[in-house]
Amino acid sequence: MSRTMRVLALSGSLRKASFNTGLLRAAVELAPEGMTIELGETRDLPHYDEDVRGAGMPASAARLRAEVERADAILVATPEYNYSLPGGLKNAIDWASRPPKQPFAGKALGIMGASGGVSGTMRAQYHLRQVAVYLDMHPVNKPEVFVRNAATLFDAEGRLVDAAAREAVRGLLEALAALSSKLRG
Amino acid sequence: MSRTMRVLALSGSLRKASFNTGLLRAAVELAPEGMTIELGETRDLPHYDEDVRGAGMPASAARLRAEVERADAILVATPEYNYSLPGGLKNAIDWASRPPKQPFAGKALGIMGASGGVSGTMRAQYHLRQVAVYLDMHPVNKPEVFVRNAATLFDAEGRLVDAAAREAVRGLLEALAALSSKLRG
Amino acid sequence: MSRTMRVLALSGSLRKASFNTGLLRAAVELAPEGMTIELGETRDLPHYDEDVRGAGMPASAARLRAEVERADAILVATPEYNYSLPGGLKNAIDWASRPPKQPFAGKALGIMGASGGVSGTMRAQYHLRQVAVYLDMHPVNKPEVFVRNAATLFDAEGRLVDAAAREAVRGLLEALAALSSKLRG
Amino acid sequence: MSRTMRVLALSGSLRKASFNTGLLRAAVELAPEGMTIELGETRDLPHYDEDVRGAGMPASAARLRAEVERADAILVATPEYNYSLPGGLKNAIDWASRPPKQPFAGKALGIMGASGGVSGTMRAQYHLRQVAVYLDMHPVNKPEVFVRNAATLFDAEGRLVDAAAREAVRGLLEALAALSSKLRG
Repeated sequence: MSRTMRVLALSGSLRKASFNTGLLRAAVELAPEGMTIELGETRDLPHYDEDVRGAGMPASAARLRAEVERADAILVATPEYNYSLPGGLKNAIDWASRPPKQPFAGKALGIMGASGGVSGTMRAQYHLRQVAVYLDMHPVNKPEVFVRNAATLFDAEGRLVDAAAREAVRGLLEALAALSSKLRG
Repeated sequence: MSRTMRVLALSGSLRKASFNTGLLRAAVELAPEGMTIELGETRDLPHYDEDVRGAGMPASAARLRAEVERADAILVATPEYNYSLPGGLKNAIDWASRPPKQPFAGKALGIMGASGGVSGTMRAQYHLRQVAVYLDMHPVNKPEVFVRNAATLFDAEGRLVDAAAREAVRGLLEALAALSSKLRG
Repeated sequence: MSRTMRVLALSGSLRKASFNTGLLRAAVELAPEGMTIELGETRDLPHYDEDVRGAGMPASAARLRAEVERADAILVATPEYNYSLPGGLKNAIDWASRPPKQPFAGKALGIMGASGGVSGTMRAQYHLRQVAVYLDMHPVNKPEVFVRNAATLFDAEGRLVDAAAREAVRGLLEALAALSSKLRG
Repeated sequence: MSRTMRVLALSGSLRKASFNTGLLRAAVELAPEGMTIELGETRDLPHYDEDVRGAGMPASAARLRAEVERADAILVATPEYNYSLPGGLKNAIDWASRPPKQPFAGKALGIMGASGGVSGTMRAQYHLRQVAVYLDMHPVNKPEVFVRNAATLFDAEGRLVDAAAREAVRGLLEALAALSSKLRG
């Protein structure tokens, strides 16, 4: 890459010790040269309400939207709640995607997720891929990052220490850089 | 039905003039004998956060959860946001479904949705059906209620006046009553 | 159950040593009292072609359709091919479901699947659940049977010997019997 | 495009008067300069069976696979059978995708579909998008081509004559050319 590639990272979990936010911290550590990763904030958004938007975009939503707009690519780490995306993460996407300008359009998307069990958030990730069709994003296909049995892969400080999981994150970032680079021409 | 069947209705939209909340008002009007439909409130829920739950279930979530528990069946009217469920509706389900007791389990689920265009919220509804697998709910299969071109079907006061759409809602409620009755034995 | 419950079982795999056909053989062994399980044959069906059907339902399709009609409930064991259902299994469903009478309607459906890796055919199973909406079948929600690392769970004769997997199959059959019984009233 | 772009087109329907095969004929007419579109043949494939493949790839499958390999991009026109892909189309994909070399990998995919009703084969198309994740294909996001009420859009010879539908097909081909060009660098 001849210039810096900016990635906006969104975590689907709000809890402090979140495995998924932990994956994003690992991504910041593991970013290939030329890639910067910034974590977006979704906690302070109201629930999406067309009447609220009609009265003026809330500052929290305008800020998130501007972050999406500035980014070259998006990275999402999501848990699976009830076999789909967490409501809070979806709500953030709902705010950031509203017209007039849809800021996700044309960008590459990297997807990963960690769960305590064996699904590795697979079901949530396929729902996100359908959302990406509307958003006109292009998700990385390989590697898919399904981090299973997550409780065993982080140390006491919440740092991802499992070598295979770190390698999966690194592989996703490299694929994201390559796809984003192609899409931007 | 030998006794009253209680249905908890959830709208996926928060705006005042919502077509989907309008569908639920029509459902209240059209409920077959022996069925009562109560609208749940989802606006005041915080974003789901495991740390918040750990510190004690918020009153708004406890109230919604109790409403789900009291209900014999659930009715959802949902818009489609970015080809999936609105974040706010999913957030309400995420709160209400948490252990120890999962109050949706074993209940029948009626699904409908209205959109301005031609999809009739189809994509969101199939995501909800996958969510229902985890929740162990049994969705009504027929009729599926995809209300298209919704702006033309309501009067100025937001009352559903289109005969075909009213008939679709009525048909769903009858199927919901029949399925719920079978499931409860 | 006061009378015999007839289950038609369909395997998504045609190979002789198929894990999924092996799951169905295990189901035959483990069927609860009062349930009989018959394996349907899908190999000899042509590819679905409306012109062929117009010229008269092929004997192989008519036979499968009659088997579906006679069954009280359906049991499917499916591999995952390219993140969805095998074409051959879907083709069998396509033939058996054609009008005038749609013979799957109203029946309970049990779903299981075995794979060599860790997905346990999860992605294929959710596609089948969407197919079931059209067919107006009611899938069992719990247990979902995702048999992982299948190569280690069968003996040299292709008999399922893993205790946990056998218990999962047994649990599914019991849930299928209970759901079918409720649906039939 | 500096050189010819080869597109392999697959129809999900086998009947002679198929709307979907009709969409592909329209695509051949409407192909932008520098794009050639060839129709693949899927009728003569056996049902996928690992034992058959083990005994040697059937000639029909080897031929299809070679066509996929030669193509720069893939175009699928699919009906919706039972809310998913037709078994025959899925079977063709299952054969063509087998290792050692997976010939779909990295290619752009254009998706369209025509139905008699209002869904426009939407549900089948989203299943195909999930299949594309495994195949490592990149589907065009916009335009999505959902051709509704198809019976009114073709003339007596099966030629697509509706102006809006023709424009949708043309738009998809242009988007396919643009995406394929980016992906090939």
